[in-house]
Amino acid sequence: MYVTLVYVQVKPEHVDEFREATLENAKESNAEPGNIRFDVLQLKQNPSYFVLYEAYESADDASAHKGTPHYLHWRDKVADWMAAPRQSAVYEGLELANDFWVSDK
Amino acid sequence: MYVTLVYVQVKPEHVDEFREATLENAKESNAEPGNIRFDVLQLKQNPSYFVLYEAYESADDASAHKGTPHYLHWRDKVADWMAAPRQSAVYEGLELANDFWVSDK
Repeated sequence: MYVTLVYVQVKPEHVDEFREATLENAKESNAEPGNIRFDVLQLKQNPSYFVLYEAYESADDASAHKGTPHYLHWRDKVADWMAAPRQSAVYEGLELANDFWVSDK
Repeated sequence: MYVTLVYVQVKPEHVDEFREATLENAKESNAEPGNIRFDVLQLKQNPSYFVLYEAYESADDASAHKGTPHYLHWRDKVADWMAAPRQSAVYEGLELANDFWVSDK
């Protein structure tokens, strides 16, 4: 599982519309081939901070996301609502399936 | 969805055993009532850094996790393997279900 955590700091006056646009994008991203999760998280301590939890089967699937019409639409739509450039980090999502335990020992 | 992101920096010489113990804990946590996700992520740029993505239906479900035998076992087992105290942040995982769109407009 190829996981990207994207951190977004939104201008307080644009939080509601950012949330709506991002949930629209998440819904369409969920339907992409290779998408496993596309969760939208809002920080409880400060609702201007969001995390996008984007999990794909492979790096290629994650890369293809960046070419979809819904991603490009979202990217342009939210550009002026962000208080700072978004940051991201890429993770290997580790396998929990039973056969992991067999093959790992 | 009540989500906690837990950031863990592991001593490099303990990465493999931390990973194994954490996957065991994740597997049992997945079976808890109210658990939605319990993903274990390993940073690609530096495999000593992990993120636990813990999603529960409610704050009470997340709180109950801290009382389970597998959590307590994991907490004690990994204590000396960490390079720094772990950090966490709590998020509201936003609803993607269709009825969200109806009720939000």
